Amino acid sequence: MTCKTNEHLEELIASVRHYTQFGKVADYIPALGKVNGQDLSIAIYDVNSGCLYAGDYRKKFTLQSVSKVLSLALVLMDRGKDYVFERVGMEPTGDPFNSISKLESSIPSKPLNPMINAGALAVTDMIIGGSLEERWKRLLTFIKELGNDIEIECNMEVAQSEFETAYLNRALCFFMKQHGIIQGDIEELMDLYTRQCAIEMDCFDLARIGAVFALNGNDPESGKQLIPKEIARICKTFMVTCGMYDASGEFAMKVGIPAKSGVSGGILGVVPGKLGIGIFGPSLDERGNSVAGLKLLEKLANEYDFSIF
Amino acid sequence: MTCKTNEHLEELIASVRHYTQFGKVADYIPALGKVNGQDLSIAIYDVNSGCLYAGDYRKKFTLQSVSKVLSLALVLMDRGKDYVFERVGMEPTGDPFNSISKLESSIPSKPLNPMINAGALAVTDMIIGGSLEERWKRLLTFIKELGNDIEIECNMEVAQSEFETAYLNRALCFFMKQHGIIQGDIEELMDLYTRQCAIEMDCFDLARIGAVFALNGNDPESGKQLIPKEIARICKTFMVTCGMYDASGEFAMKVGIPAKSGVSGGILGVVPGKLGIGIFGPSLDERGNSVAGLKLLEKLANEYDFSIF
Amino acid sequence: MTCKTNEHLEELIASVRHYTQFGKVADYIPALGKVNGQDLSIAIYDVNSGCLYAGDYRKKFTLQSVSKVLSLALVLMDRGKDYVFERVGMEPTGDPFNSISKLESSIPSKPLNPMINAGALAVTDMIIGGSLEERWKRLLTFIKELGNDIEIECNMEVAQSEFETAYLNRALCFFMKQHGIIQGDIEELMDLYTRQCAIEMDCFDLARIGAVFALNGNDPESGKQLIPKEIARICKTFMVTCGMYDASGEFAMKVGIPAKSGVSGGILGVVPGKLGIGIFGPSLDERGNSVAGLKLLEKLANEYDFSIF
Amino acid sequence: MTCKTNEHLEELIASVRHYTQFGKVADYIPALGKVNGQDLSIAIYDVNSGCLYAGDYRKKFTLQSVSKVLSLALVLMDRGKDYVFERVGMEPTGDPFNSISKLESSIPSKPLNPMINAGALAVTDMIIGGSLEERWKRLLTFIKELGNDIEIECNMEVAQSEFETAYLNRALCFFMKQHGIIQGDIEELMDLYTRQCAIEMDCFDLARIGAVFALNGNDPESGKQLIPKEIARICKTFMVTCGMYDASGEFAMKVGIPAKSGVSGGILGVVPGKLGIGIFGPSLDERGNSVAGLKLLEKLANEYDFSIF
Repeated sequence: MTCKTNEHLEELIASVRHYTQFGKVADYIPALGKVNGQDLSIAIYDVNSGCLYAGDYRKKFTLQSVSKVLSLALVLMDRGKDYVFERVGMEPTGDPFNSISKLESSIPSKPLNPMINAGALAVTDMIIGGSLEERWKRLLTFIKELGNDIEIECNMEVAQSEFETAYLNRALCFFMKQHGIIQGDIEELMDLYTRQCAIEMDCFDLARIGAVFALNGNDPESGKQLIPKEIARICKTFMVTCGMYDASGEFAMKVGIPAKSGVSGGILGVVPGKLGIGIFGPSLDERGNSVAGLKLLEKLANEYDFSIF
Repeated sequence: MTCKTNEHLEELIASVRHYTQFGKVADYIPALGKVNGQDLSIAIYDVNSGCLYAGDYRKKFTLQSVSKVLSLALVLMDRGKDYVFERVGMEPTGDPFNSISKLESSIPSKPLNPMINAGALAVTDMIIGGSLEERWKRLLTFIKELGNDIEIECNMEVAQSEFETAYLNRALCFFMKQHGIIQGDIEELMDLYTRQCAIEMDCFDLARIGAVFALNGNDPESGKQLIPKEIARICKTFMVTCGMYDASGEFAMKVGIPAKSGVSGGILGVVPGKLGIGIFGPSLDERGNSVAGLKLLEKLANEYDFSIF
Repeated sequence: MTCKTNEHLEELIASVRHYTQFGKVADYIPALGKVNGQDLSIAIYDVNSGCLYAGDYRKKFTLQSVSKVLSLALVLMDRGKDYVFERVGMEPTGDPFNSISKLESSIPSKPLNPMINAGALAVTDMIIGGSLEERWKRLLTFIKELGNDIEIECNMEVAQSEFETAYLNRALCFFMKQHGIIQGDIEELMDLYTRQCAIEMDCFDLARIGAVFALNGNDPESGKQLIPKEIARICKTFMVTCGMYDASGEFAMKVGIPAKSGVSGGILGVVPGKLGIGIFGPSLDERGNSVAGLKLLEKLANEYDFSIF
Repeated sequence: MTCKTNEHLEELIASVRHYTQFGKVADYIPALGKVNGQDLSIAIYDVNSGCLYAGDYRKKFTLQSVSKVLSLALVLMDRGKDYVFERVGMEPTGDPFNSISKLESSIPSKPLNPMINAGALAVTDMIIGGSLEERWKRLLTFIKELGNDIEIECNMEVAQSEFETAYLNRALCFFMKQHGIIQGDIEELMDLYTRQCAIEMDCFDLARIGAVFALNGNDPESGKQLIPKEIARICKTFMVTCGMYDASGEFAMKVGIPAKSGVSGGILGVVPGKLGIGIFGPSLDERGNSVAGLKLLEKLANEYDFSIF
């Protein structure tokens, strides 16, 4: 990476910001729709040379689907690979992230991977703890540690709003409960899951979390192993094969780095061994990815040859 | 119909009872599994010449899916055809009765017909009333009137047991709630629906209800129009095109009368203008129909030329 | 039936002809698109009181899917029920008439019924004969006999045009050949099938064929048993459960008689014991049924209480 | 890579050869079934330090699905990305490699990616040339150049046998022809495609082809750019997201290198910047991948840290 200045990053942002007009802010819940569609910000955490920023990189946003990678890492650490992959598959899917049909046609009836809603719900169901609050604290503590930011919290307005309207996710949960994939109480799971999706941070936090993955699970500052290397690698693999909704394949070709997006407009990017990237651009394309964020990553990847392929 | 004697009916039963060994009693809830698999009984309500019985025709059983026809009749009367068929389709389906995939692939996302679980749940959701108890009373009163038996009640043990384990039906409900097909509270709906399925009666009651349909909705005794003719006809049509689960087409060919079966082993049969039939035979084939009950109806239909085709 | 005069039939036609404007003539092959969308004609063959006509009832049209019922009758006669239903199912389907997905998801991989394209192709494959010409002659002779009209022939322009463009039907055939449902050469089958669909007749011929079914397989003039009673009944059952494409259920409710439609705009109708009906109205609704033809049947059915339910 | 000796490779092979007993040789055509299920061989082409071999690495086998990557590279070079990806998608699929359902449910009806049969057939259809022989020669010449082996040829017995029985692939082709994805004559396409799958080479040839991809398209000996860098990268991306049938995700996690397998038991592996790998082990697991070949790659990857993640 020779992107040495914030100024250059600002130029890059300026050159792609107009793409925001081709997208749309998610508004299936009112709380999400309040943001400014023209926002675009980025933080890059270079594990060798420090950080770069551009845009309003301290603006907070909720993780939404980005959180799926983090809960997966936690659950793999707590439960072990065998336990987790008995309940959730490892394969990409050509179906939409919220689809239920494959659960019905697959034998056994388990979600294809942890990046689609069904799989992520099954993963969150596996978070250990004697109560909702204990499980929630366990997850939040882990994410605060990854981001090295004790101020990371849940946006309860967003969580509450999603909790009240998440009928489709409840359908997925009950279907999986019928088939023994999900064990716990569904309303408790929905509460935990909607909080998880509503965890709020800024680009800088996200970039730092990316740096942890870039360093195979090591804290970029303390050097502490926050996530075992194998689990970090598993997470990065899922980010490549199914991190960007129905555009994962296209993204792998055009950009070629592990990344996970959310409908809030956040993107977590990882350049193995080198960088963590956090992006916030709430204007989404029709697949649910930040439209300008994608362009920004594509430009960066081409300029600095980020692709792992 | 020249089946003039109970003795002849008893002979018919004796000749098919051994088929019960080729089936299995439903045991997905313990309360259902308590019955004797070799049971087989029948009542025939001839609108001209009175009633015939064979077997232990006063033994009670729960309606299960047989109830789908009755709630449909009630809701069509209360809401009108247009309202109902905006939310539930009129077409048979090649998918299993509890399938969710077609809800996802259909646009708009409405159940194909009221005889599959999704459709029946949507119908029950339309039962009018200010509270669960009011709606339940409305349905039960209607069914007591059809059966002319004030002792018809719900088997609360069965209802409770189904309520607690009906994860798949909850999945269907939440999916439909997401798509605006179902309006009400899901837990209240599940309570009402599991009570509806657990309504308990005997073959005689069922035969009398069949007679009402045979007479285009008229009470065979009082002559009162309990169901408008057009609605009775709609119900009979659904019984022919999708009354016998995945064997509806085969049944139409071999027997050729409107009929609806349930996993308790009950079958409601209608010979238009002539007879109502109630059968109880809890040993089920792999599609969920009473294995000996089907044989009994096939023999009767061939002997007395019941087919409407 | 008290529709005693051609004049009354003409009035009925006049009252529904404007519905033709809400439909569209099939034009996926040029030869089909040549007709006049405002055409509407009907012939009724009353087995007791002779025939009635209205519109240009001697205008010829190709049978298209109407032919599926006739080839089924022939093959059931030649091969027997067991042979046929080992290869084609008896159940209605909620999928489109030309769908391939259910062939893939069903185990064993056989078409759900003989009224969808896959099933009809499998049926035509079973027509007996040592060569294409022998098989074709066998089918055509049978249909001439049903219609009592030696002038019934194939419209070779339509047949040729369909033969050249029937890629989807070839896909269905090869899929079924892979699974052992279809035995013969696919190109020969396509030739035979496209000729079958292109058999040309007029409303009067079609009404007479309907009369044969109305009389349980007996020739209305000679009394000869052209089709065994059981097979005639099987055909009528399929007409009710899946004769009108994706509107079969709705048609059964609104009209309630065995009927089979084709994309040429033809409809074969049967009022058991009473009438055969032939209709031609090439303007189609979005499901592929004659838009004015449906209205005409609905009016007739209501006026004369045709419904079998 | 410090795997410096053939002896060490032989030891690795010896340590995993017993896995062959847990698999089965493909025998859907007799010509494929003739091989010895216990065979296992490997060649590694290190772009810095020369080649290593173990097992009977000069034994020939047909490419089968491995060829899908090579025809894709050729067609991307000849037609350009835009042309190709208008007709074939870029996304992984959770469906089996030979599935047809997604073609029906997707709008537009294009194959999800070039590694499933439908996509590979569409790709082969795009090979340029005025005749079958011209197109075939174009493909074969390209592959000879990649392998730097003019003796690479088609096994005509295998090709012929697949040609005669490839009903399912014909079904896929006709379905795509119906939807305009495939333009050319289907029988010519089948001829070309079955030849492509029957191209025969040994592990050494395959390892050398892998080295070309490892070097971003450059010939490891002459340095000539045989495939443009961007196209080589696209191919490697598809190998990661969908190269190992329904086990692509699991393989990416456990091994983490671009690879493509075929039902002959061949595997093409690429360690970017470093190695090409050719493996032959015809005993297959239930997903169609070489059972001992997978274990061998897993051991190598762990020992030498091959994973790109």
